Amino acid sequence: MKTSSETQIRQLLDARAEAIRAKDVDGVMTAYATDTVFYDALPPLRHVGASSARERVEAWLGGYVEGAPSVEIRDLTIAAGEDTGFCYYLYRVSGRLTTGTEVDMWVRATMCLQNAAGRWIITHQHDSVPFDAQTGAAVFDQAP
Amino acid sequence: MKTSSETQIRQLLDARAEAIRAKDVDGVMTAYATDTVFYDALPPLRHVGASSARERVEAWLGGYVEGAPSVEIRDLTIAAGEDTGFCYYLYRVSGRLTTGTEVDMWVRATMCLQNAAGRWIITHQHDSVPFDAQTGAAVFDQAP
Repeated sequence: MKTSSETQIRQLLDARAEAIRAKDVDGVMTAYATDTVFYDALPPLRHVGASSARERVEAWLGGYVEGAPSVEIRDLTIAAGEDTGFCYYLYRVSGRLTTGTEVDMWVRATMCLQNAAGRWIITHQHDSVPFDAQTGAAVFDQAP
Repeated sequence: MKTSSETQIRQLLDARAEAIRAKDVDGVMTAYATDTVFYDALPPLRHVGASSARERVEAWLGGYVEGAPSVEIRDLTIAAGEDTGFCYYLYRVSGRLTTGTEVDMWVRATMCLQNAAGRWIITHQHDSVPFDAQTGAAVFDQAP
């Protein structure tokens, strides 16, 4: 049971990665619970609900030029029981923004999932980068 | 079963909050898995293992003057099955550092837990603040 749940979550992540590559916002959002709570790397403190999270995903993918961003996942850990699971990983996001700025940074991600009627959905996501306590600046140059 | 798991996780969080108030590092660390992976609000990108997480907790609590920090938890959500669970919440941390600096900020927190031999332990924790994409500065003034 446990192994099967973890396999299903891995498939969800693969499908999500595919949707991100295709800039398919509907495809990305299909995995989210309606009442999902998303702590993003950018403000606000949190997005409550899938429509708020969707706006953020749309702005994120729309901010990059065609073919970008590139997302590389590292050190993925998945744990899941029958109806509750989580995973966490690091990802490197890189590519050129439509403003011309080049992005290349490592982000920490945690996803919490629940199985609703036989389907895993993301009820909570937390993405972030650390900040330097001395300068107050977000730290983008930390690589795993 | 589910309700009982969630109650146990709530008790773990209460005991942890009590240990933080007492600056009892051993008390805080008792809830962590040996191989816990901690994404903290400050660098590095991650702490792997309880001894690395412990150093961070020690530095955090030791950085405040006596009686501080004060930690206020808001909007806690807990979900748990028999052996896998998670929770997420916002917390306000405030107080004077030993350097004289006054801290008052809202942090997002996610904890992922597993039940090992009848006891819940934190296998992953993720704490962060968002950053401003324009300035690259961490954002401390967001309140829920």
